Amino acid sequence: MHPDKIRAVLEGVRDGRSSVEQALGALRDLPYEDLGFARVDHHRALRQGHAEVVLGQWKTGEQIAGIVRSIAERSQNVLVTRVDVDKARNVRAALGAAFEDLRYDESARTLTLERQAIEIRGRKPIAIVTAGTADLPVADEAAVTARMLGNEVIRVTDVGVAGIHRLFDARASFERAGVIIVVAGMEGALPSVIGGLVTLPVIAVPTSVGYGAQFQGLAPLLTMLNSCASGVLVVNIDNGFGAAFAATQINRRDT
Amino acid sequence: MHPDKIRAVLEGVRDGRSSVEQALGALRDLPYEDLGFARVDHHRALRQGHAEVVLGQWKTGEQIAGIVRSIAERSQNVLVTRVDVDKARNVRAALGAAFEDLRYDESARTLTLERQAIEIRGRKPIAIVTAGTADLPVADEAAVTARMLGNEVIRVTDVGVAGIHRLFDARASFERAGVIIVVAGMEGALPSVIGGLVTLPVIAVPTSVGYGAQFQGLAPLLTMLNSCASGVLVVNIDNGFGAAFAATQINRRDT
Amino acid sequence: MHPDKIRAVLEGVRDGRSSVEQALGALRDLPYEDLGFARVDHHRALRQGHAEVVLGQWKTGEQIAGIVRSIAERSQNVLVTRVDVDKARNVRAALGAAFEDLRYDESARTLTLERQAIEIRGRKPIAIVTAGTADLPVADEAAVTARMLGNEVIRVTDVGVAGIHRLFDARASFERAGVIIVVAGMEGALPSVIGGLVTLPVIAVPTSVGYGAQFQGLAPLLTMLNSCASGVLVVNIDNGFGAAFAATQINRRDT
Amino acid sequence: MHPDKIRAVLEGVRDGRSSVEQALGALRDLPYEDLGFARVDHHRALRQGHAEVVLGQWKTGEQIAGIVRSIAERSQNVLVTRVDVDKARNVRAALGAAFEDLRYDESARTLTLERQAIEIRGRKPIAIVTAGTADLPVADEAAVTARMLGNEVIRVTDVGVAGIHRLFDARASFERAGVIIVVAGMEGALPSVIGGLVTLPVIAVPTSVGYGAQFQGLAPLLTMLNSCASGVLVVNIDNGFGAAFAATQINRRDT
Amino acid sequence: MHPDKIRAVLEGVRDGRSSVEQALGALRDLPYEDLGFARVDHHRALRQGHAEVVLGQWKTGEQIAGIVRSIAERSQNVLVTRVDVDKARNVRAALGAAFEDLRYDESARTLTLERQAIEIRGRKPIAIVTAGTADLPVADEAAVTARMLGNEVIRVTDVGVAGIHRLFDARASFERAGVIIVVAGMEGALPSVIGGLVTLPVIAVPTSVGYGAQFQGLAPLLTMLNSCASGVLVVNIDNGFGAAFAATQINRRDT
Amino acid sequence: MHPDKIRAVLEGVRDGRSSVEQALGALRDLPYEDLGFARVDHHRALRQGHAEVVLGQWKTGEQIAGIVRSIAERSQNVLVTRVDVDKARNVRAALGAAFEDLRYDESARTLTLERQAIEIRGRKPIAIVTAGTADLPVADEAAVTARMLGNEVIRVTDVGVAGIHRLFDARASFERAGVIIVVAGMEGALPSVIGGLVTLPVIAVPTSVGYGAQFQGLAPLLTMLNSCASGVLVVNIDNGFGAAFAATQINRRDT
Amino acid sequence: MHPDKIRAVLEGVRDGRSSVEQALGALRDLPYEDLGFARVDHHRALRQGHAEVVLGQWKTGEQIAGIVRSIAERSQNVLVTRVDVDKARNVRAALGAAFEDLRYDESARTLTLERQAIEIRGRKPIAIVTAGTADLPVADEAAVTARMLGNEVIRVTDVGVAGIHRLFDARASFERAGVIIVVAGMEGALPSVIGGLVTLPVIAVPTSVGYGAQFQGLAPLLTMLNSCASGVLVVNIDNGFGAAFAATQINRRDT
Amino acid sequence: MHPDKIRAVLEGVRDGRSSVEQALGALRDLPYEDLGFARVDHHRALRQGHAEVVLGQWKTGEQIAGIVRSIAERSQNVLVTRVDVDKARNVRAALGAAFEDLRYDESARTLTLERQAIEIRGRKPIAIVTAGTADLPVADEAAVTARMLGNEVIRVTDVGVAGIHRLFDARASFERAGVIIVVAGMEGALPSVIGGLVTLPVIAVPTSVGYGAQFQGLAPLLTMLNSCASGVLVVNIDNGFGAAFAATQINRRDT
Repeated sequence: MHPDKIRAVLEGVRDGRSSVEQALGALRDLPYEDLGFARVDHHRALRQGHAEVVLGQWKTGEQIAGIVRSIAERSQNVLVTRVDVDKARNVRAALGAAFEDLRYDESARTLTLERQAIEIRGRKPIAIVTAGTADLPVADEAAVTARMLGNEVIRVTDVGVAGIHRLFDARASFERAGVIIVVAGMEGALPSVIGGLVTLPVIAVPTSVGYGAQFQGLAPLLTMLNSCASGVLVVNIDNGFGAAFAATQINRRDT
Repeated sequence: MHPDKIRAVLEGVRDGRSSVEQALGALRDLPYEDLGFARVDHHRALRQGHAEVVLGQWKTGEQIAGIVRSIAERSQNVLVTRVDVDKARNVRAALGAAFEDLRYDESARTLTLERQAIEIRGRKPIAIVTAGTADLPVADEAAVTARMLGNEVIRVTDVGVAGIHRLFDARASFERAGVIIVVAGMEGALPSVIGGLVTLPVIAVPTSVGYGAQFQGLAPLLTMLNSCASGVLVVNIDNGFGAAFAATQINRRDT
Repeated sequence: MHPDKIRAVLEGVRDGRSSVEQALGALRDLPYEDLGFARVDHHRALRQGHAEVVLGQWKTGEQIAGIVRSIAERSQNVLVTRVDVDKARNVRAALGAAFEDLRYDESARTLTLERQAIEIRGRKPIAIVTAGTADLPVADEAAVTARMLGNEVIRVTDVGVAGIHRLFDARASFERAGVIIVVAGMEGALPSVIGGLVTLPVIAVPTSVGYGAQFQGLAPLLTMLNSCASGVLVVNIDNGFGAAFAATQINRRDT
Repeated sequence: MHPDKIRAVLEGVRDGRSSVEQALGALRDLPYEDLGFARVDHHRALRQGHAEVVLGQWKTGEQIAGIVRSIAERSQNVLVTRVDVDKARNVRAALGAAFEDLRYDESARTLTLERQAIEIRGRKPIAIVTAGTADLPVADEAAVTARMLGNEVIRVTDVGVAGIHRLFDARASFERAGVIIVVAGMEGALPSVIGGLVTLPVIAVPTSVGYGAQFQGLAPLLTMLNSCASGVLVVNIDNGFGAAFAATQINRRDT
Repeated sequence: MHPDKIRAVLEGVRDGRSSVEQALGALRDLPYEDLGFARVDHHRALRQGHAEVVLGQWKTGEQIAGIVRSIAERSQNVLVTRVDVDKARNVRAALGAAFEDLRYDESARTLTLERQAIEIRGRKPIAIVTAGTADLPVADEAAVTARMLGNEVIRVTDVGVAGIHRLFDARASFERAGVIIVVAGMEGALPSVIGGLVTLPVIAVPTSVGYGAQFQGLAPLLTMLNSCASGVLVVNIDNGFGAAFAATQINRRDT
Repeated sequence: MHPDKIRAVLEGVRDGRSSVEQALGALRDLPYEDLGFARVDHHRALRQGHAEVVLGQWKTGEQIAGIVRSIAERSQNVLVTRVDVDKARNVRAALGAAFEDLRYDESARTLTLERQAIEIRGRKPIAIVTAGTADLPVADEAAVTARMLGNEVIRVTDVGVAGIHRLFDARASFERAGVIIVVAGMEGALPSVIGGLVTLPVIAVPTSVGYGAQFQGLAPLLTMLNSCASGVLVVNIDNGFGAAFAATQINRRDT
Repeated sequence: MHPDKIRAVLEGVRDGRSSVEQALGALRDLPYEDLGFARVDHHRALRQGHAEVVLGQWKTGEQIAGIVRSIAERSQNVLVTRVDVDKARNVRAALGAAFEDLRYDESARTLTLERQAIEIRGRKPIAIVTAGTADLPVADEAAVTARMLGNEVIRVTDVGVAGIHRLFDARASFERAGVIIVVAGMEGALPSVIGGLVTLPVIAVPTSVGYGAQFQGLAPLLTMLNSCASGVLVVNIDNGFGAAFAATQINRRDT
Repeated sequence: MHPDKIRAVLEGVRDGRSSVEQALGALRDLPYEDLGFARVDHHRALRQGHAEVVLGQWKTGEQIAGIVRSIAERSQNVLVTRVDVDKARNVRAALGAAFEDLRYDESARTLTLERQAIEIRGRKPIAIVTAGTADLPVADEAAVTARMLGNEVIRVTDVGVAGIHRLFDARASFERAGVIIVVAGMEGALPSVIGGLVTLPVIAVPTSVGYGAQFQGLAPLLTMLNSCASGVLVVNIDNGFGAAFAATQINRRDT
């Protein structure tokens, strides 16, 4: 809990403006509210000054709609991740006409609601580099997330290590970024090569794109964890959102 | 290779100041030299303006001594990682009296040579948080690395999740950092808790400390990759060096 | 087999009241009966004084209906676990109007029949704590089971480690329990934190909620087995029933 | 942190008896002290009223000696686990004559110091059942732990499932326990059989005893997690201490 | 290839009765014929004097029908394994009225054609023991196979280790067998218990019945391989056919 | 990038025929063109003088159609792999009547377009040997690939190790090849046997054909990697294409 | 427990010759005796009429000596398995001159004591076939075991699949056996080939001989479980004893 | 067995020059001889015209010496692989002064005896490319093997993907090879990059160099199997010998 809030509440106690019981109640009710099935934490959004993020994967369309409505009432932006086409349709149906500005990106599997203009707060753009066409959905999730959290985004696609001259052509464009997210399936060798070329922070996202001994992303995950390029940072398989969230934290002006 | 160098060389060609063959030779010989068993890349150190890093694990004491001597001749600082006690002794014996300022840290398993004062180039301190006493060697490797690469370091030790009140007491000290490195063995839950408390970038280092179903670090590795705190970044098991290297890239003033 | 029964039978033999063959027959036919496809063990229910439990997962609707009918004839309560919606419909269809009081809980995937009032035999309530919304089905299975086996239940939901202040708010409510069941997917760190806060027995249930390197529950399973909080007890992935069954054994007044 | 302590401190603030800064300081320094390399938590021992437990595995003999001395100064009992013969010798050497009552159990790999008589606080004995001779060290660790934490212990040894008549002979002795700890290596089938015989809580400890496809304890770990006997609870491979710690929590009179 | 056949052919060559080319042709065409997609080996059936066995899993209904027809033309019995309901329907449709005696067992997933009376050639019955109801399909596959290969079969069902008194009741019936096949999912402990009770050869079949850490049969597979009962023999997960085939080889009168 | 091209471009710069900017532009646009979702690399086809290869698995029918059209405009042949029936239909629909010569092989899951006669450039035929009927799709993919890349193909089917006399009969036919591709599922022992019989390069392809402990191809993959026949080379599970591609490189006249 | 014994005891009770308590005592003390650290089961040896078997791996030399002495007092033969050189020396030292006929086989790692002539009770010889020289220790363990349990043994060595002509030469010698034990490391393909050649029961023993992706025997274990030769039976990695024990059960005249 | 030999023998039979028995004897005794512990196959060396290869890993120094002597008597060259320093010393001691020309390479762990000049029979050199210094022993094993089997060798060292400009500098030297062996530990990305640069056959050798999630070579093994560069061929972890053996087969003039 935020120390300033506690301080304020305690000063109220000290100054006799409130009893201990009142203070306790105030603290408890403040930064989230109970929707019955999940406690939505507005606190987080406040800290970040940007879109509230909702993980859509194990929620029903009705649950997502309820959360979106609750957030929108406070005029905040919303990002819902891991929403498949059918669930997106259900969310729309449940929200109705007042939410026609809710946008669905089928590749990124995201729902976004922009009720405020997004203020760019990142120091530099975030570059998102993709090894193969099949990795685009994960890269798209990262791109939508990075944008909703207040970053410019540079996209570089289809520059796998097996045709490494393409990578060198594209290099100029990603070297002006503040962080690089590298999305790669199959054997996931791209972050090692990029990590050896640049001095920027590199976040590697293994994807489940592959077959056989790729083991649903295990192969590139191990590759990235063992990268001979020092300092490659790794997130979970197919976790484009997590990579963009971390990149935002790295890229913030005030850190 | 650095575009400016290529540009300079090509302008020489364009202006007739040098032939193609000369330019090629210049480029080839520049940033590294052949020691027979390994090409030492001075290039990297130049880019980073700090210590040259050598991975000591699979090199003999003689090989390490040779590399250290080669770097020291250019008056650069040196950091050698993953050196056990016996190998450190061999390195010293091979280098002799001229290298009495070579320092060995038995816990961190590092050899360091500071021939230049280390210039602090990081924006803020790097916090290194440890869950248990047994994780200290990995945290020490991270701390030595962070310092040699030009960062202030904040240490917080023994604040595991099973005694979570300790963590809250220590919180103030790590919240003024620019990046947090969290080192944890056993089940490795600490980065999730810290990742939920702060908005700074969090780099998680799983350690092989544990037994049985800890599987030499697999358990905390999986824990960290699946963290419910968004944006936790993961490096290889016991890779304190890699965490500090990445933290340095994140923390640099000029990015 | 129960020693008292054997004793009684043997005394019959000793006293000449029955031949060895008769005694053997009596012993054999007593505590279960053959339904052709499975021997229903009424014995167990007798020992526990509560609902007879049936694992529904690999049985057809027809088989489940047959077993339910057989148990109900002895006026016992029934709990059937791991029944999906379609199978529940088949069971109902097969049982007909005489079983309209058969209740189906879609989240918990349980069928329950209460033909006797459930007598509370647990010393204290059983607390069931859930990390995320997606873990509710497993927690619901645990809750239905705990109730059917004669326990009061306290529910605490959505208190994951990434928002740990929520957990502290909820702490008072679960500290009055006799046992705590902690249900957690993703990285499954919650039992470690709770295990460090309380001195009650903690039963941890990993769930398959997650993706990528969560490996269908392997990640939280390993986390829980390696918990740095001493004494965390673990059951199989998604096994809400097993956790509640064990909690009932721990919580019984007479042990 | 304990609510009563906070309450007392806050009432001091409310009543003007202390400033916020003083209260904060008091809270911070209370329940542990800094030994430099590890924060010893006396808090825990106070809550449990019994021996303070120290995990010896990754500590040096000197570190263990320091912690033992610190605890003994408060006249508390001490249990140090996972100490091999050489380390035990180092601890003794470092502690000297004042600690001649420090006892080392080579099979259990424990050091124990009893400066207070152990008060039996468990409701019933804890039974510790072993499948094979090779599993005795883990069972011994459990037995020493159970005793040091205030329990009577019943030992039953060498009753593996391949000679199941032995198990039935021994049954009477373990049925009067309050909890049963079953230690088993190889395929680890014993907890399933015992779990089907009794209605007591069963804690299963897989051991690394076996070879080939036993995979250092993975085989019995999986066996126990999948037990067809409902309610078998599992701890980490070779974790005799954890089993006894959990059994103590289950067995306490006041829960 | 059979040495006698080669001898005969070679004597033909020696005696001038046939050229090398003729002999070669004769050898090639003898014991199988080319159906285009698979070489059916009548040879095997001849050696075994019983049903020809066809693995149906990766063949189309049309392919199976072709093979069945080819075998039936030689008046041999046929056993096709791993045929699901839809494929069975296709086979029937393709074979038409002349094959109305083709029998499909939905649980065992077998097609059988008995054009000759099955001669019992086994020394004793083969006992097939099942731990749980869900394991019946694999046991049924074993039973159908054992019968088609010329064995009497004893079935014992639902005698899992968690209700071990049932097993002892059933013991008399399986002790008169020549071999025991034990089929068990979940943790697969049953073969260990039976292996300790009898001195007959025991073949253990792990099944994929279970969830979570059962890992599709890995848990009982490891259990059975590590059985503390000496001499338990193991086949692949769900391989009821293989167990019965091996049991037949063990049980043959002439070995 | 090809050194000659760079040389030519640089000579232009040296001779003043072009500015640096022009040269850079020329280099960038040369060997591929941007289709928006993927950079098609005509370069590769040029190097190989044969069909351009497209991996169809994670592309939509529309994307494949676009790539095929782009390649066909340069009168090149096309091979698209890993296309299931539905996707093949979509590709056809999108391409229309001008591509009626596009051929789909349902077993191999390939689309092929032959706009030029295929010139045989391999030194000798490539033999493709299959252990079981179920492995045919992978072998077919290898065969189509080998042919499209300019090789003659010898097919040998259904010669598994369990009926090893068939293998010896077939031996003469595959010994005249230049490379042997061995496709095997189940336990994958065939490459070891063939590797011991011949002195030709052997490429082993494990397939996912099997069940239980075959683990979707892991079993034959490990078998092949550990082959006691020296020099067996392995590709990914089910990777018929990769095997044929490598075989083509080995078999080329000019290497 | 043996039904006849129970019957006798119960008849005593029925006829008034003994009280229940007496009978109980008699039953309990009969077939084993307590040595303090392990209950030696003479029962087993009686059933098998041959050597008593002791697993030496996790016992000390002193423990083994105690057990050997206890068995020898009843004039039984003894087989101790998994005894390394140092432990064997300790056993000898502890037993002294009275046990000079105790024989140690360094390759098989067995101690044997023959106080009775071994009576051959097997129907036919047991063949033990080895793929490579390095597999000999496991095969030797099997051979010693088979002999001590009353079987003739045929040895065939070094007939791996990579030189398959050797196997065919040796075939005549193993076809007269009653059971074949095939010991193979590396990829473990030999049992598949032999299983396809013979109609005898085949017991496959994977060994840990290999490196890299052999994973200490996992590779041949999976190979053997997935054998395309029907009916191959598998035991644990390096378990030569278990294979010979099972072979003895198969080979016994009276089954 | 070689068809020509069989043909010759059979023609002898047909022409009456020899009886069947004589021919059989001749065939049996020809290409190997029995040394008691292993059948040395001279046949193989004859086919390859080069050094006889012996796998030293699981043989004693005495056994190796025996085999070397046996081969040397036929004036053949010998290559013994996987011999550590101590064993090499034993071999030398056993062979004595007559084998002073036996050479030991400590890095490659090979013993070589050149009694004949090695005739170069490869079409082109074999290039052996190494990613890191620590991979040199495996590369050295490959180099010694390639040379002993009649190939020229090109060595390129220390060109890992993290400093990819070094690779481009070295490219000219390996493009004139006939086959490329790429040896790489850590994440093993190098074969993917090289496979994308060249059109030569690429054999990838994963090494166990790394730590943590490298899992003794599993990480680079999976990387190489999933390479996005088509046609990369893989051998077992650390199998430098196997790579060179396969490269020799590919490189032979007569294939």
